[in-house]
Amino acid sequence: MSKAFRTGFEEYTESEVIIVGGGPSGLMTGKELAEESVKVLLLEANNYLGGGFWLGGYLMNKVTVRDPAQNILDELEVPYEQGSENLYVADGPHACSKLIAAACDAGTKILNMTRFEDVVLRRENRVGGAVINWSPIDALPREITCVDPVGLESKLVVDATGHDADVVSKMEDRGLLETSGYGGMWVEKSEDLVIEHTGLAHPGLIVTGMAVSTTYGLPRMGPTFGAMLKSGKKAAKVALDELGKT
Amino acid sequence: MSKAFRTGFEEYTESEVIIVGGGPSGLMTGKELAEESVKVLLLEANNYLGGGFWLGGYLMNKVTVRDPAQNILDELEVPYEQGSENLYVADGPHACSKLIAAACDAGTKILNMTRFEDVVLRRENRVGGAVINWSPIDALPREITCVDPVGLESKLVVDATGHDADVVSKMEDRGLLETSGYGGMWVEKSEDLVIEHTGLAHPGLIVTGMAVSTTYGLPRMGPTFGAMLKSGKKAAKVALDELGKT
Amino acid sequence: MSKAFRTGFEEYTESEVIIVGGGPSGLMTGKELAEESVKVLLLEANNYLGGGFWLGGYLMNKVTVRDPAQNILDELEVPYEQGSENLYVADGPHACSKLIAAACDAGTKILNMTRFEDVVLRRENRVGGAVINWSPIDALPREITCVDPVGLESKLVVDATGHDADVVSKMEDRGLLETSGYGGMWVEKSEDLVIEHTGLAHPGLIVTGMAVSTTYGLPRMGPTFGAMLKSGKKAAKVALDELGKT
Amino acid sequence: MSKAFRTGFEEYTESEVIIVGGGPSGLMTGKELAEESVKVLLLEANNYLGGGFWLGGYLMNKVTVRDPAQNILDELEVPYEQGSENLYVADGPHACSKLIAAACDAGTKILNMTRFEDVVLRRENRVGGAVINWSPIDALPREITCVDPVGLESKLVVDATGHDADVVSKMEDRGLLETSGYGGMWVEKSEDLVIEHTGLAHPGLIVTGMAVSTTYGLPRMGPTFGAMLKSGKKAAKVALDELGKT
Amino acid sequence: MSKAFRTGFEEYTESEVIIVGGGPSGLMTGKELAEESVKVLLLEANNYLGGGFWLGGYLMNKVTVRDPAQNILDELEVPYEQGSENLYVADGPHACSKLIAAACDAGTKILNMTRFEDVVLRRENRVGGAVINWSPIDALPREITCVDPVGLESKLVVDATGHDADVVSKMEDRGLLETSGYGGMWVEKSEDLVIEHTGLAHPGLIVTGMAVSTTYGLPRMGPTFGAMLKSGKKAAKVALDELGKT
Amino acid sequence: MSKAFRTGFEEYTESEVIIVGGGPSGLMTGKELAEESVKVLLLEANNYLGGGFWLGGYLMNKVTVRDPAQNILDELEVPYEQGSENLYVADGPHACSKLIAAACDAGTKILNMTRFEDVVLRRENRVGGAVINWSPIDALPREITCVDPVGLESKLVVDATGHDADVVSKMEDRGLLETSGYGGMWVEKSEDLVIEHTGLAHPGLIVTGMAVSTTYGLPRMGPTFGAMLKSGKKAAKVALDELGKT
Amino acid sequence: MSKAFRTGFEEYTESEVIIVGGGPSGLMTGKELAEESVKVLLLEANNYLGGGFWLGGYLMNKVTVRDPAQNILDELEVPYEQGSENLYVADGPHACSKLIAAACDAGTKILNMTRFEDVVLRRENRVGGAVINWSPIDALPREITCVDPVGLESKLVVDATGHDADVVSKMEDRGLLETSGYGGMWVEKSEDLVIEHTGLAHPGLIVTGMAVSTTYGLPRMGPTFGAMLKSGKKAAKVALDELGKT
Amino acid sequence: MSKAFRTGFEEYTESEVIIVGGGPSGLMTGKELAEESVKVLLLEANNYLGGGFWLGGYLMNKVTVRDPAQNILDELEVPYEQGSENLYVADGPHACSKLIAAACDAGTKILNMTRFEDVVLRRENRVGGAVINWSPIDALPREITCVDPVGLESKLVVDATGHDADVVSKMEDRGLLETSGYGGMWVEKSEDLVIEHTGLAHPGLIVTGMAVSTTYGLPRMGPTFGAMLKSGKKAAKVALDELGKT
Repeated sequence: MSKAFRTGFEEYTESEVIIVGGGPSGLMTGKELAEESVKVLLLEANNYLGGGFWLGGYLMNKVTVRDPAQNILDELEVPYEQGSENLYVADGPHACSKLIAAACDAGTKILNMTRFEDVVLRRENRVGGAVINWSPIDALPREITCVDPVGLESKLVVDATGHDADVVSKMEDRGLLETSGYGGMWVEKSEDLVIEHTGLAHPGLIVTGMAVSTTYGLPRMGPTFGAMLKSGKKAAKVALDELGKT
Repeated sequence: MSKAFRTGFEEYTESEVIIVGGGPSGLMTGKELAEESVKVLLLEANNYLGGGFWLGGYLMNKVTVRDPAQNILDELEVPYEQGSENLYVADGPHACSKLIAAACDAGTKILNMTRFEDVVLRRENRVGGAVINWSPIDALPREITCVDPVGLESKLVVDATGHDADVVSKMEDRGLLETSGYGGMWVEKSEDLVIEHTGLAHPGLIVTGMAVSTTYGLPRMGPTFGAMLKSGKKAAKVALDELGKT
Repeated sequence: MSKAFRTGFEEYTESEVIIVGGGPSGLMTGKELAEESVKVLLLEANNYLGGGFWLGGYLMNKVTVRDPAQNILDELEVPYEQGSENLYVADGPHACSKLIAAACDAGTKILNMTRFEDVVLRRENRVGGAVINWSPIDALPREITCVDPVGLESKLVVDATGHDADVVSKMEDRGLLETSGYGGMWVEKSEDLVIEHTGLAHPGLIVTGMAVSTTYGLPRMGPTFGAMLKSGKKAAKVALDELGKT
Repeated sequence: MSKAFRTGFEEYTESEVIIVGGGPSGLMTGKELAEESVKVLLLEANNYLGGGFWLGGYLMNKVTVRDPAQNILDELEVPYEQGSENLYVADGPHACSKLIAAACDAGTKILNMTRFEDVVLRRENRVGGAVINWSPIDALPREITCVDPVGLESKLVVDATGHDADVVSKMEDRGLLETSGYGGMWVEKSEDLVIEHTGLAHPGLIVTGMAVSTTYGLPRMGPTFGAMLKSGKKAAKVALDELGKT
Repeated sequence: MSKAFRTGFEEYTESEVIIVGGGPSGLMTGKELAEESVKVLLLEANNYLGGGFWLGGYLMNKVTVRDPAQNILDELEVPYEQGSENLYVADGPHACSKLIAAACDAGTKILNMTRFEDVVLRRENRVGGAVINWSPIDALPREITCVDPVGLESKLVVDATGHDADVVSKMEDRGLLETSGYGGMWVEKSEDLVIEHTGLAHPGLIVTGMAVSTTYGLPRMGPTFGAMLKSGKKAAKVALDELGKT
Repeated sequence: MSKAFRTGFEEYTESEVIIVGGGPSGLMTGKELAEESVKVLLLEANNYLGGGFWLGGYLMNKVTVRDPAQNILDELEVPYEQGSENLYVADGPHACSKLIAAACDAGTKILNMTRFEDVVLRRENRVGGAVINWSPIDALPREITCVDPVGLESKLVVDATGHDADVVSKMEDRGLLETSGYGGMWVEKSEDLVIEHTGLAHPGLIVTGMAVSTTYGLPRMGPTFGAMLKSGKKAAKVALDELGKT
Repeated sequence: MSKAFRTGFEEYTESEVIIVGGGPSGLMTGKELAEESVKVLLLEANNYLGGGFWLGGYLMNKVTVRDPAQNILDELEVPYEQGSENLYVADGPHACSKLIAAACDAGTKILNMTRFEDVVLRRENRVGGAVINWSPIDALPREITCVDPVGLESKLVVDATGHDADVVSKMEDRGLLETSGYGGMWVEKSEDLVIEHTGLAHPGLIVTGMAVSTTYGLPRMGPTFGAMLKSGKKAAKVALDELGKT
Repeated sequence: MSKAFRTGFEEYTESEVIIVGGGPSGLMTGKELAEESVKVLLLEANNYLGGGFWLGGYLMNKVTVRDPAQNILDELEVPYEQGSENLYVADGPHACSKLIAAACDAGTKILNMTRFEDVVLRRENRVGGAVINWSPIDALPREITCVDPVGLESKLVVDATGHDADVVSKMEDRGLLETSGYGGMWVEKSEDLVIEHTGLAHPGLIVTGMAVSTTYGLPRMGPTFGAMLKSGKKAAKVALDELGKT
């Protein structure tokens, strides 16, 4: 097991794209990139992947997507029912596990229980990787947390950390980016705007999913997951362009 | 979404088997039973399924199985490497998401974020269902936790809650069962013993996975997951017998 | 305000019956006794009364009663709908506030934010009152909690503290009573048994509501409130007998 | 119960006025509006309603009102005594439960254990509803709180959240309103000022009760509840004007 | 006891000077004022008085004063030894209990376990009293802390709350005063400066003890208590001037 | 200061009697013994002395004693009022500081902020001293609490630790004593019984104050402090007998 | 670094003796065994080694040893002063770092930040290794602690975990050993007894240092470290005998 | 022991250099200065020294240094292996204990479990010492933390507190220094920059180790310890210059 871990670890240090955050948009980005043979590493702070996709809104274990995002459910072979004219409903655990499995099957490497700590910066402040640590370190009492993080390099980093926008926020700490926080809820408008703004936020840094709302101050979304899946797809396209693979 | 939730909820109240705990043995039992068209409901206290299967031992995200449990990985279409003569290694997130997806595809119904609170008892103390509640209730300050649980009925209950053996332990509280706690570690012997003892522990109650060690005082296992998957398979067989479906 | 408080406080020290716990059964006992001109004092550890009656089971704000407990809802002028053949559904906040208002209108004195700490014992260990303290004292760090409680005397004490059965439990600590804990859930049987066992558990001490289950080891109830209201009514009747007021 | 819950839930999504906060001013607004047949929904973060009205100042369970607010106690059929020339004293639990019961009797719908999370914004930043979530979600460890809130629409929102002024404060976060915090205590002046300033603070948003002090920097009030009840009445009047129902 | 409490409570509402904080400077101010027949009320958030005077620096239970503050120890009949040329050493518990006893003997009224919450403001923002609450309220979970404070009026308020300078800090919150925080430690200079700056900081508000350092940004003191006792004496003199009693 | 501390520390190691707990009974024992020139050391876990004597029952800062304990208040020069026929009421802080000052004036040595950890045992398990540590050690995270306690020897140890009966309880852990826990409240009987049972509980160990109730299972007392003061006096007498000083 | 870690990890799995606990007795055992070319692995739950040896008793950073344990300080080249006739005093950090350095120089392998979880048991319940896990796992919230421990085999295990006696205690949980807890303090007797009882407590299991007191119910020691160092030496001798290396 | 402690304590008050923080850079500075016969006192908030040097990055107990820092390992007689072309790997506990032992052997005085609280300032705000307190004081509940710190004087203070830069940060609080926070990770550049910027940051104040990054906004370092050891050496040289000892 130790040998396998070491082999994996060495692979991780040579990825082209590092995706921070294993919720629906990050997983979708990972799946799409890996399908194009990009070496992609996904970091997840929890032991499990999927984020809020296991549950829908309001503690119900149903997730909803608006038309035409049901096509992505079809791609993932997730069964769903039509809830209203343009709203489709699936079981959270079913949709979530199929998406993770699809990302893994495509070849996305996963480092779970691993916390993003900081960005690696390169010439002219281009983002060039992620500084990471084991998640449990945070849970230790301050007296014994003297454990240094390590840096992983990559050509691109994707911020898929949801409303926290952890990567973007580290850039903001250093005055390299400015975010606006998300606005009041306006469901009709918010989904299209998130997809529209998905893309490069800084040289080397792509933003996807709810982190897009935080970065550009868009209205907050309701609990529909279609926009997140579609934003993840678009982030993959932007990444392929940046890597010159299209 | 509310309508879909209600429909689901009504289905849940008519299940033949309730599995408590969504780790590898519980998921495997669910998958096998659902494939035989048994109406099966799986309860999970966390928002996510998979339990310790996302990570292997010692914080490494590799999981191992001993020969011949790699056959189950083949069934689940999980890629793996041979680690030593009789040990096979897979990525945790990959194996875990494929197993969950397989259980869902087969038709297992899932109630995640749902805590098992107690057993439903019937004539002559036969186990006849589970008393459940939302998981977040536990996290509330004591002053505002006056939220009553509800009871779900079923023909069989499967205790797949790991070393805690939550269902068995509730039976023990009432003097209806006696457990032995698990013994010291003895890897070579423990796996076979767990599978051997998997089965009916009390009328209406089947025990599987690590809960078997706790119930019968078997040596504790190391971090290999093969025995859990095989114990889950055996639990499904015992359940089919009990239901007269074989 | 200080004068009014003092007047009230002096009244409290001369009550005939002290009810510990302001959930549905305690409030009902209070209302029925006060309507018969018994001087009755109800102690509640929280700032608010009503306990679990504000919410029904499973975080839904609907409460249910089984036939014929809807008659009590009629008495309290709480609107309800018929849920199924013998099940009636009301809004939790509506039913709860009407019951509290009815107990107050009848003349029940209330000491909220007041914790029961111990029993007052008399000759031959007859229960003769309650030792109380402000609830916030418990929340203080141990270093500054040296605040002594006070004793209030009465002819009877009613334990309406729910599954904790706080008063009964203090008697058990001293070897004066023995409880059995509650059994597994068995909805059909449990409600009738609770009402049947409501009554005198020790000289000077009446048990009502879910505390009855704990005292006599009855099956646990589901989230229907009819039995608690009816148990509260019966406790009042037993108290009137004891006081020689029937 | 599940069916009744669903019916209720659907009603909630069609309310004309959403009141955030179930203390004395919010309850009074709800009662007055419901009496005029306005469809009104009241959100409360705790399981119980009434807020600080269960207890008076300084841990005494007496509440006081200044002349002529005793007329409102008369309306609510709450008994009281005259404390000094222009001060009237009532039992907290009695006054509080009667006010809640009156609001419910009038037809106010209640969602308790429900936290206000954000505003719904419409064209030109008019307030058009509330984003809500279950209260227990906040109590969960951060790792498993990925539960999305839902939005409810309405024509008007009333901020009755006390000194926190939660709704106003969300508007301030977005630069749409500016608050002043409350001033030092000046009992004589503060009550009249609160009533005077009760009203529309922004298109679609009415402020009532202690939230008025926070919004306009008025002197803080002492523990008399008359101004809160009267402010609640005025808020209802302003809402009726806005709805064109006067 | 309840009667005695009420009598005391009524006396408290008619004091000429309210001292906030029962450490050495506040106690000395109280003693000196009460000896001149001023009606003085001292508020202390803990159950005990004396603050840091029970222990000296660095967890040793010896307290030190610099020459000529040993004269105050003589006045209080506290035995001491000469530590070095101009430094005198006494037992902490001995010195502390004698000082408290002297303040009580002189007639200072004490409200312990009582937290200062805010200032009472009068015409032209003159400080005219203190808003207080029971200390345990702070320790309650947020859900049940809806307990309103009460206001006490007085001609003068003395801030003797140590480095926190709680009263001054509430004035600063409203833009009525500006503080500087204390500087680095400079023992030789700091003691004289504290005594020099003790006095009126705003109409109706006197500052004494370590709160003086915070208000005027003086160097922080070492663990010698002489300056605090002398500052307390000077604060009393300033108060007598303000009250026209000299 | 360091020198003075060392001198004091050396004195502490040569005391004849160690009193554990600085509440009313321990202080009274200390005062009486020191007045007879016994070398006595009092250990207190908090920084302050006095325990529950700063506050009376129910958060009121009045303390009460029953006739004839007012004579002790006279001895201590504490003013009081007659509350009812045989009940006398004093201010808590006043009574408490005078008692501490009296104990110190008589010559009792004090180690505050010092926790009793264990007994020192001698031949035939005679109690021969106390094992102590700094109180803050307990507050440290477990990882850094490796700080060993020290032992202090004495001829006698007095357990004045209140209902916890810390010293007695350590004896019970080793099977050298058996306690009964205290009974229900019975104010009339309990005070006399406490004084009656005050005395030697084991060779070298005297019990006083509320620790007596715990040791012998006496009814619990109400919040009157007379019995504690008188028990402290009796403990001193028993100690003098044991030391052969009468 | 990863490669070096793997190499180290593989070495760990082949040790002859596993010492649990890196305080003075465990380190001394490690040093003595490694000097005899025994392959020895020391497990420490903290990130640092040395345990209570960094500080002496009562928060002073001086450590003391009784004659003739100063000879061990000589061996370790730790300077010391003579405190009294037979007591020697050294700086804690100096003595502690020299002892650790000596154990490392001799060749002891260290796994710090590693928690002992359980024993590995072999035929006839002989202790045959330790089950371990990362220490931070304990600090995680329960929801995400599904991380399995691993087992390490060895010929002997040494319990050097201090008063907790963690290894012995796991044996006791299974009924394979019985401990007595430590007795009251009796400094003169305890040190010799600890050394005398150091040795084999069960086949495969040696006990050393303060764990000896807990296992055999010896009087507790004061803060002198001589007995721990000498007990560690003796444990090494017993181990060499058991391994047939003497 | 008490005598030895006092002697030590007196020595501490006469040091020429106070080093705050006992990680690798502080220890190296201490060792180098003490070897030049400078009286040097090192303060450490934990009970143990060494900080993050016990563990390497990512929870592995290996530490790495880049060429030519292996020369310092040679000086300290720490064995190491070559990891890659210019990277050397050592065991953390081995390297760490040898460094501490070397600093102690050279004559560095250590005060562990001692927290830096503030600077001592002199004429023209020159740093002239440190205000310190026992570490456990911070862990106490706020109610009993009234323990005053003490000041220690010295000619120079070295901030070796890592990324927190505690001393520098206290200067910044008073407007005497301005820090920049550290930048993104850039391993190649960061190590040289840290050594280059090590030196005097303000009259009387030298900065070393990771505190240098925080002070001057340098890129953050990866988990290699070479730069910290070399920065510590340079800080010692700067200090010798300042003291005129070169």
